[in-house]
Amino acid sequence: MNITTINQVPLEQVALPGAVGCAYRVAISARDGAENFAMRFFEVTPDGQTPLHSHPYEHEVYILDGSGSVWRDGQEVPLQAGNVLFIPADEKHQFKNTAVNSFKFICLIPSKFQKC
Amino acid sequence: MNITTINQVPLEQVALPGAVGCAYRVAISARDGAENFAMRFFEVTPDGQTPLHSHPYEHEVYILDGSGSVWRDGQEVPLQAGNVLFIPADEKHQFKNTAVNSFKFICLIPSKFQKC
Repeated sequence: MNITTINQVPLEQVALPGAVGCAYRVAISARDGAENFAMRFFEVTPDGQTPLHSHPYEHEVYILDGSGSVWRDGQEVPLQAGNVLFIPADEKHQFKNTAVNSFKFICLIPSKFQKC
Repeated sequence: MNITTINQVPLEQVALPGAVGCAYRVAISARDGAENFAMRFFEVTPDGQTPLHSHPYEHEVYILDGSGSVWRDGQEVPLQAGNVLFIPADEKHQFKNTAVNSFKFICLIPSKFQKC
């Protein structure tokens, strides 16, 4: 059993095209022996965003802190702490921070798509 | 894309032998099309606990609120908000609330082991 504290996990910038002010911590992945799914913690700065994109794997998301939005079928849907999202594979999506504090959320994906 | 709020998901008692004051919300599972992993939110009352048990699948856990402990190799390891745990398949474990407020955590497992 591995036990850590999320703030001790390195914060890495998301380098994907279209990502602005977006960083993440890879808390659990295949390097820990997690063969099925990876747990990542995202932090988006004010005015920041993730790419508007899709990919062949799902997201499971829980909003931890701050206020933001998610792009769904061309609409910006407001999000806040306590929201849970299931984004199926191949569905276009984008997260934006719409407030003045960090927008923080957990996002899980299948392990095989997470570089360690 | 499904978007919900965790407090709108029904809270169900955990009926496993050894569970005391333990309830959970199944936020995302195979019923939502999540074929790989299921997201569940646990709430353990003061003096409550999950069973001391093991099973042939892993847990990925994030502590949301309160204070508690986890049984690891015979030791009770203290836990608080911000801790992340990876519990491999077949490793014995038990969570306990050690404080006066609810002990809350997210716990993910492979979908095929989550009854919808």
